Amino acid sequence: MIKIMAEKNNLPYPSKEDILKAHQRITPYIHHTPVLTSKTLDSMMNASFFFKCENFQKTGAFKARGATNAVFSLDRESLSFGVATHSSGNHAQGLSRAASLAHTPAYIVMPSNSSNVKVAAVKNYGGEVIFCEPTLEARESTLAEVIKKTKAIEIHPYNNPLIIAGQATAALELLHSVPGLDIILAPVGGGGLLSGTALSAYYFSPDTSVIGTEPDQANDAYLSFTSRTFIPSEHPDTIADGLRTSLGSITFPIILSHVSQIVTVSEQSIIKAMRFVWERMKILIEPSSAVPVAAIMEDKIEIRKKKVGIIISGGNIDLDHLPWIQI
Amino acid sequence: MIKIMAEKNNLPYPSKEDILKAHQRITPYIHHTPVLTSKTLDSMMNASFFFKCENFQKTGAFKARGATNAVFSLDRESLSFGVATHSSGNHAQGLSRAASLAHTPAYIVMPSNSSNVKVAAVKNYGGEVIFCEPTLEARESTLAEVIKKTKAIEIHPYNNPLIIAGQATAALELLHSVPGLDIILAPVGGGGLLSGTALSAYYFSPDTSVIGTEPDQANDAYLSFTSRTFIPSEHPDTIADGLRTSLGSITFPIILSHVSQIVTVSEQSIIKAMRFVWERMKILIEPSSAVPVAAIMEDKIEIRKKKVGIIISGGNIDLDHLPWIQI
Repeated sequence: MIKIMAEKNNLPYPSKEDILKAHQRITPYIHHTPVLTSKTLDSMMNASFFFKCENFQKTGAFKARGATNAVFSLDRESLSFGVATHSSGNHAQGLSRAASLAHTPAYIVMPSNSSNVKVAAVKNYGGEVIFCEPTLEARESTLAEVIKKTKAIEIHPYNNPLIIAGQATAALELLHSVPGLDIILAPVGGGGLLSGTALSAYYFSPDTSVIGTEPDQANDAYLSFTSRTFIPSEHPDTIADGLRTSLGSITFPIILSHVSQIVTVSEQSIIKAMRFVWERMKILIEPSSAVPVAAIMEDKIEIRKKKVGIIISGGNIDLDHLPWIQI
Repeated sequence: MIKIMAEKNNLPYPSKEDILKAHQRITPYIHHTPVLTSKTLDSMMNASFFFKCENFQKTGAFKARGATNAVFSLDRESLSFGVATHSSGNHAQGLSRAASLAHTPAYIVMPSNSSNVKVAAVKNYGGEVIFCEPTLEARESTLAEVIKKTKAIEIHPYNNPLIIAGQATAALELLHSVPGLDIILAPVGGGGLLSGTALSAYYFSPDTSVIGTEPDQANDAYLSFTSRTFIPSEHPDTIADGLRTSLGSITFPIILSHVSQIVTVSEQSIIKAMRFVWERMKILIEPSSAVPVAAIMEDKIEIRKKKVGIIISGGNIDLDHLPWIQI
């Protein structure tokens, strides 16, 4: 298996040039997503908010950025046997789409209890789905078998410098559209988005601080960050399905160095914030994207009179099951 | 009661200048809403679609345009006793907000069975709610009493040239953003939006044809248009709650002269189209706004290889009751 490292630099993580190159590389294939504002939220909280709407991104989530950067960084030969990952979420769709654009197969290992909606979405983007038992061990061993059999290249959902550089381009665009942000908030699961956001702020707007937001009930990043020791996610039980994973060996050190704070929020706040955004801003966001909004509404962050960017990570949600409707 | 006529022209309907003046008048108070596209829909239907997103408008609907134009067209003296209307929908919110901006009261007659959500929204924008029995007779007689008592000026939701000129500004902006549209589609209820859209196309882009779209189960505009005789809406039974009203004495002749076609769609198509827009475009639209999308998906209009504008009229919907979820 080819090990994917950061491009032409000696850092264990993406350089400024890596992020600029990633943006150039993926621009033909992704949306330059809009930045929305909400006068209602601004006056409620006495601050100015700027929502970078990755829910409008291709495949409905920022994950299209990293996956596209990773796939299009590979040369023809490396691409000849396809790419592979295990994922039941947005990375699976992003990778399937990117592989399809590069005319190579994507092998996606998914737990057998994945929802039909998610399986259909991956297939719709051209991914080949391989089912496994719904345990991390089964996912990893099945992926290893698939790679052995197909010689496909593994594209990890977050612990990969090319993925991080790709995710960093959302904040890059936001900082370009809205100069002088005091803070950027992003949700944190495996840390691909948060570490990329932190690097973009560090390189392109050093006065902007980056804050991670996480569910109380999946607070491994918060625990790891405050103890400065890697603590994996155990039995995460949150509606924010994108944020159940643990940090990685590449994302964690970046977060330790470049993120100023991680705050956590309750499940109830996440649902309330999600509904607020749907009702008042008329956009669909998934529960993971409501986490930074919940942090604001819970008054967990000092934001008064500040310019605050929020990365709205995605908008993929099963419309038959909304958290505020009991069936 | 002061009769509100089209401004300084001898037409029974707004002139080109009236629409331009309306746009200038309301610009400080409304959003210049974005135009979104959908590659998915484009490739499904082999056409180019441009969604003018009035769901992102102040108060969540295009109605803010007309109401703001009507209120800000009145002089100080006329405004001194406030404005009044009967409405259980988006006009009530638009008029309440406009009156509040003009520092004058808005008296809103609402049927006693209006949902709490709608009543709360009107009060939230500063409207004073007067309840009545849920019949058209009661609405009209209660409004007459309110006007007698308060000396407020009635602002009809659609049969008023100032309202029509205000609603026309949505298409004005769309035609400015996307020159060379072949068709614009709009839903039709009382006809304020459709007649305004048709006038804007006629004045500013005469090669653009305007098509009205309506639910099968509230097809009074279709029947009136095809028979060229006013046929009122009887027992409309549609999920598109904004489209249950009948055409007016001012809107109907404009529609007859300047609209090229009216098509109708089933309830099932409306729900399907609404869900499609939510899922694929990640924006919240109300059932009335899904009607033109349904007309496209039902293949009711010849749109292949054409540039098609769609006025997304609003995004106000009770999130506790979605049409595809049976509780």
